[in-house]
Amino acid sequence: MGRMRVPVQMRWADLDAYGHVNNAAMLTLLEEARIAVFWTSQGEESMVSGAKVLSGGPGSDTHTLVARQEIEYLAPLSYSQDPVGVELWIGQIGGASLLVCYEVLTPTGEVCARAASSIVKVDAGTGRPARFSDAEREALAPLVDDPVEFRRR
Amino acid sequence: MGRMRVPVQMRWADLDAYGHVNNAAMLTLLEEARIAVFWTSQGEESMVSGAKVLSGGPGSDTHTLVARQEIEYLAPLSYSQDPVGVELWIGQIGGASLLVCYEVLTPTGEVCARAASSIVKVDAGTGRPARFSDAEREALAPLVDDPVEFRRR
Amino acid sequence: MGRMRVPVQMRWADLDAYGHVNNAAMLTLLEEARIAVFWTSQGEESMVSGAKVLSGGPGSDTHTLVARQEIEYLAPLSYSQDPVGVELWIGQIGGASLLVCYEVLTPTGEVCARAASSIVKVDAGTGRPARFSDAEREALAPLVDDPVEFRRR
Amino acid sequence: MGRMRVPVQMRWADLDAYGHVNNAAMLTLLEEARIAVFWTSQGEESMVSGAKVLSGGPGSDTHTLVARQEIEYLAPLSYSQDPVGVELWIGQIGGASLLVCYEVLTPTGEVCARAASSIVKVDAGTGRPARFSDAEREALAPLVDDPVEFRRR
Repeated sequence: MGRMRVPVQMRWADLDAYGHVNNAAMLTLLEEARIAVFWTSQGEESMVSGAKVLSGGPGSDTHTLVARQEIEYLAPLSYSQDPVGVELWIGQIGGASLLVCYEVLTPTGEVCARAASSIVKVDAGTGRPARFSDAEREALAPLVDDPVEFRRR
Repeated sequence: MGRMRVPVQMRWADLDAYGHVNNAAMLTLLEEARIAVFWTSQGEESMVSGAKVLSGGPGSDTHTLVARQEIEYLAPLSYSQDPVGVELWIGQIGGASLLVCYEVLTPTGEVCARAASSIVKVDAGTGRPARFSDAEREALAPLVDDPVEFRRR
Repeated sequence: MGRMRVPVQMRWADLDAYGHVNNAAMLTLLEEARIAVFWTSQGEESMVSGAKVLSGGPGSDTHTLVARQEIEYLAPLSYSQDPVGVELWIGQIGGASLLVCYEVLTPTGEVCARAASSIVKVDAGTGRPARFSDAEREALAPLVDDPVEFRRR
Repeated sequence: MGRMRVPVQMRWADLDAYGHVNNAAMLTLLEEARIAVFWTSQGEESMVSGAKVLSGGPGSDTHTLVARQEIEYLAPLSYSQDPVGVELWIGQIGGASLLVCYEVLTPTGEVCARAASSIVKVDAGTGRPARFSDAEREALAPLVDDPVEFRRR
């Protein structure tokens, strides 16, 4: 399977006064793509049912925290009512962590950002890392691909 | 035609630490519904082509400014990957202004907010109100219905 | 005492592509002014110690919810590193609710918005309205003044 | 001089439903620190007048764009009415670019994030990189220090 493509809607308020999606708002677009791919949800036809294995939200037993992020902005992103396409895959799976990799495509198909987030599954009560089960690993495996390569590191 | 229903995606970052969509973020959801219904856009199959007569964005000749808003929060809105439904209609059409009315429905169909925005079409250069043309009026007319009624005013 | 004036910092990301503070971001500025005036906080020299009687945040016994808001945008607000001045007062005190009124002044002193928020003190566990104590009423009383008058209602 | 410390106010809306400042909102705090240190502004007593040499905003001749960011979240950041302290310095100066480095300190002095942003000065009209003048270099020089070291790269 490898990479998934997730449509994510921009918002007019994501723009700043330069007329482009603000640098911080870009991370919010990535967050929405991550939730669409990984979080379980009730009563909804799952877009990518296989990988929806991480619980989330205030009431759940485990949380997913972002430990680290890296992003390159390759082209300014203008507002459109058409969604961006977020290509998302897993660059690495650890005991309780994932390296989630992304390429963001403008509505016309140009790569406007490349990014990676290290996320950690933690127990909501203790805050300690909570290892992935075998079933979770199996569900996540099809999304594994080479880590994103940054150009300007 | 009367009221339109527009699906709008919530975002995880719309929540605040009470675990519900923040009061200000609710206005951003309304903004997205308004743009979906009224703004023209190129190369896109329009959801409601009839009413897409207002130009928007930094490069356009006219802007649509929000002059006034009123909102009642009827129930807390929790996060879901399913969109809210924004019922949107026009409560009044003036020379260069619209009273846009809304009811926001949770993904399970409960009314969680009622609101109204007075928006004004202005010339982007001068900032002066720019009257609707006959063609614009005709396009907007099918969305006219009684203004939203607030309970706690 | 009557009205208080609270300085609130704008942020670059509050602007949208029209180059002005976005309509929804304006409510976030009001929220910060409200918190500065009303919320208790530990270990901090209180700007307006008298009125800091409402607890807030995820761990507290009572929450303050926004039930209703009304805002008029009188002039576009441009970005400045100087704060806006939010004049804040109480237009009405109910059993468990307040009508908080505001005038927002640009860094150069022009009124750019008038607004009012109905906020309700609720028990964090049950979600039910929690009446103000006599001590809270006494602390809030000096901020009472006539409700804000809207021009375009 | 080396590092500067800039106080930046959190906002209640920066929190997400986990009760901590959201990962994307942290970049907005960095943006505000960067603007406070580098952007020129009229009629204001400058906190750090020496380094205020970059123009910004929609009307200016040059813009500062963010080309790349890297951030490590070391501890969750809870809401406080007291500001975070952003330690900010320059890790590297190029022809038209800066590596801006940060450590974010909670109101009680704990390091909660480390980050770096590559920013580029561009001509607002052409979008091309605009080299720093000698005067700008001289003004920026006192803020140069070793680049931030990331632990988990």
